[in-house]
Amino acid sequence: MKSNFFVPLAPRGLSTISPPPPWHYAGDFLIIDFWARPEAVAALLPDELQPDVKAEGHAQAYFIDWQFTGEHDELLDPARYQYREFFILVDALFQDKPVAFCPYIFVDNDAAIARGWTQGFPKRHGLIYQTRVFAVNGIASPKLVSGSRFGASASAAGQRIAQGTVTLEKAVTDAAALGSRPTVNLRHFPRLAAGQWERPAVHELVESVMDHFSVADAWMGKGELTLPVCQNEEIADLAPIRCGNGYRMSVSYSVTDLKTLVDHSFK
Amino acid sequence: MKSNFFVPLAPRGLSTISPPPPWHYAGDFLIIDFWARPEAVAALLPDELQPDVKAEGHAQAYFIDWQFTGEHDELLDPARYQYREFFILVDALFQDKPVAFCPYIFVDNDAAIARGWTQGFPKRHGLIYQTRVFAVNGIASPKLVSGSRFGASASAAGQRIAQGTVTLEKAVTDAAALGSRPTVNLRHFPRLAAGQWERPAVHELVESVMDHFSVADAWMGKGELTLPVCQNEEIADLAPIRCGNGYRMSVSYSVTDLKTLVDHSFK
Amino acid sequence: MKSNFFVPLAPRGLSTISPPPPWHYAGDFLIIDFWARPEAVAALLPDELQPDVKAEGHAQAYFIDWQFTGEHDELLDPARYQYREFFILVDALFQDKPVAFCPYIFVDNDAAIARGWTQGFPKRHGLIYQTRVFAVNGIASPKLVSGSRFGASASAAGQRIAQGTVTLEKAVTDAAALGSRPTVNLRHFPRLAAGQWERPAVHELVESVMDHFSVADAWMGKGELTLPVCQNEEIADLAPIRCGNGYRMSVSYSVTDLKTLVDHSFK
Amino acid sequence: MKSNFFVPLAPRGLSTISPPPPWHYAGDFLIIDFWARPEAVAALLPDELQPDVKAEGHAQAYFIDWQFTGEHDELLDPARYQYREFFILVDALFQDKPVAFCPYIFVDNDAAIARGWTQGFPKRHGLIYQTRVFAVNGIASPKLVSGSRFGASASAAGQRIAQGTVTLEKAVTDAAALGSRPTVNLRHFPRLAAGQWERPAVHELVESVMDHFSVADAWMGKGELTLPVCQNEEIADLAPIRCGNGYRMSVSYSVTDLKTLVDHSFK
Repeated sequence: MKSNFFVPLAPRGLSTISPPPPWHYAGDFLIIDFWARPEAVAALLPDELQPDVKAEGHAQAYFIDWQFTGEHDELLDPARYQYREFFILVDALFQDKPVAFCPYIFVDNDAAIARGWTQGFPKRHGLIYQTRVFAVNGIASPKLVSGSRFGASASAAGQRIAQGTVTLEKAVTDAAALGSRPTVNLRHFPRLAAGQWERPAVHELVESVMDHFSVADAWMGKGELTLPVCQNEEIADLAPIRCGNGYRMSVSYSVTDLKTLVDHSFK
Repeated sequence: MKSNFFVPLAPRGLSTISPPPPWHYAGDFLIIDFWARPEAVAALLPDELQPDVKAEGHAQAYFIDWQFTGEHDELLDPARYQYREFFILVDALFQDKPVAFCPYIFVDNDAAIARGWTQGFPKRHGLIYQTRVFAVNGIASPKLVSGSRFGASASAAGQRIAQGTVTLEKAVTDAAALGSRPTVNLRHFPRLAAGQWERPAVHELVESVMDHFSVADAWMGKGELTLPVCQNEEIADLAPIRCGNGYRMSVSYSVTDLKTLVDHSFK
Repeated sequence: MKSNFFVPLAPRGLSTISPPPPWHYAGDFLIIDFWARPEAVAALLPDELQPDVKAEGHAQAYFIDWQFTGEHDELLDPARYQYREFFILVDALFQDKPVAFCPYIFVDNDAAIARGWTQGFPKRHGLIYQTRVFAVNGIASPKLVSGSRFGASASAAGQRIAQGTVTLEKAVTDAAALGSRPTVNLRHFPRLAAGQWERPAVHELVESVMDHFSVADAWMGKGELTLPVCQNEEIADLAPIRCGNGYRMSVSYSVTDLKTLVDHSFK
Repeated sequence: MKSNFFVPLAPRGLSTISPPPPWHYAGDFLIIDFWARPEAVAALLPDELQPDVKAEGHAQAYFIDWQFTGEHDELLDPARYQYREFFILVDALFQDKPVAFCPYIFVDNDAAIARGWTQGFPKRHGLIYQTRVFAVNGIASPKLVSGSRFGASASAAGQRIAQGTVTLEKAVTDAAALGSRPTVNLRHFPRLAAGQWERPAVHELVESVMDHFSVADAWMGKGELTLPVCQNEEIADLAPIRCGNGYRMSVSYSVTDLKTLVDHSFK
């Protein structure tokens, strides 16, 4: 199980913050479509991306309950590897091609922060929760039927940064209806040496690569999202002008690769 | 939504630590049968209970991912009300009748501590995790099939107090096979006035009452449990001499009542 | 170390949620005087207390970094017993005598919840932080001098419920200037048996008793406090109309007693 | 406050995981000298470092309560920036010069993880606690006098990875007696692109640079440390064969630079 992929570079690879790829994920997703002020979206884009004017500020909020495993049954150690996530994707263009860019993302697990940074997801720590479904019937377990409601929230450093609700209407029979722009991230790692602060060691526009992507039990309906004003946080700049569809589904995929689009790293 | 049931007794009942009953629960259970030293089990029993000699130290460890709701859609506020739990039940006799007694229980949620104390569950704070099942297929999501493995752990104040694994063998078709002794707790609330410390305001042997108990997707197989030695913790006194069956299932029920068996409160 | 004071009533008294009294405390306090709407204060008072009309809605917010110990060096186990606290005291009258009543209090530690409930403090779980002073000079360590600023915040279930700042002006040479109304709490423990929900097992108006109260390094200055509006929380009903003095000091005391003023428990 | 130093690269620099340098720190340190098996120390060293044979496996454990601030009063936002840390330094040689290398380090704050990675500290998330001193006298507040005891612990993913005690004997009048090898880290950031996993984007041996280093209230005495065996953790490979001095002191410094010793990054 020796790994030189992540720190700490421990002799037997056990104490590393996360096992090396391949990485395998399964999770429950709550997704909410919304429209922010187009200028607020544009202000978040790196130089290499252009605003997608036709999208009119379209964005999506994701709340996910994740289970992760590497190649050594990490799913049997949920205290270390199970986690929850909240992130936002905004519509943009890369060389005239529609893409989705991730400006903000929060997880409650350090292994997920490490993997995320490697993929270009700008992860911070947060506390994220969503209403769950259980196999058993009962008042405390919503069913996957029209009218069922699911709540979700995300907090960072003790402030509520996002709150959402999805009310189911109908099952999604055509997965293509879920759409899917490629996700584009800014992979970035600074230099601390005096005089080098503006010359990051890593600064690349990258595109996420997912293998074996699979969806089950996808439902859609009405989404509602708020991004409350918080001290010293900018996420509320994206506060929804209006909300659209909401989705709930279970998703799995694996990660073994990353595609560099533009490399601005300072060598 | 006014409630005078729990503190704080807030004017509109919103800031109370938990809504009043009825309480509704749904959750995923991992259960492991084990046998501890009979003397260790006997040492935990309150005066009103007798050791169940035939049980030979039999006990059960429960790891549960819970969703709670009261009567006002509390399941839509998972940051406040969703929680995880670990507890142990030991076999005992009450007036020659087989019962199960809960000596130790840990949850990661204050509303659950409040409700638990009211029911006689001696709850402390802990961090509890178990492997999850998702609707989607994938390497990171175990299926409910023979051979699938589920891990679970519990920690208190930074020490690992329990670790378990369940390997599925077969679906449980006869729910009666799951057995079920009534759960008996010691409901207790101290007096702090000088000279009154040995005269608790509440000290009752009580029996849990559950309504609308329902089970789904019950599987059984092999259980493995360790209760590691920890500083200033006594749970390891129950360290398994041998382990037996393991179970995984989804369970729901409601709570609206509690039965007093013996009342030793000092009035 | 056998204890029958708190649950769990473990054989050797180690696994109990908190050691029995005597309880010893030392901590750093940030205190902010403020005035809420008098009607909002009145709405919080139990029947046995009357509004203190002359106080015009006066209240105080406390942020405390606590160290606790019992009689067995619990201060050497800070993972289990060190904690942080936020609470509000509002002015009131009991039989024409000025008192302070605690409607809301939050701690990040389960042992503190258990002790608090026993004293009548209606504790819930929260995350609380305050700026610290260190013995060493440096930009990251404010000194106890005029102009130094201290920040503090409290959150519950991922929502920011309070935020405060104290700017020091002068050392407090006369501790009497700190004032001190007796603290009066509502000690309360419910009954769950069907038909008994309105007949709490414990429902007493009590007065806190502190021994060996000691203050050091007390400073006063300007206090600022906000109590933001939060979903399903009522604390913002006390939102400051204006703020007054702020204080920072170190305090120690012991607790071995509690005084019952009125007992409305249902026997 | 615009920053392009850390992700997320937010428009106004507020939502970044940590402000850019300069970084200012003040903290309370508990330090314990110990000797591990020399082979265990050697197994941790990167290729560029050699075992310090004369050190005979000497290492140090640090438990620190930190306050951080950047240039914008971040110390007034302790919920986001105050943190606790545990790490180990092992003696080694770099080009025949005595240095200290950090193989393992844990913090409870994401901003500290981000800064640490930039400095080459291989930080993971943990929960760390130490006994505190308060200005006030009292049973719950140890004084800086001979015989006083301080406890500390660190946990990761619910397992106790380190536990220490320092018993004070005498004040340290000569700060030089505290010794101080330069701290050498392995600054590392992986590549995820398929086929590039063994070609990290950043892989440099670096030396920490600290400005305005200041110490106050330094005491020394007896140190005791255990590094318990934990599942899937390698830290216990360094379990003390014997322990030596223990120290308690307050320390402050600033960070604005980092010195590269050897750069093995794959360009």
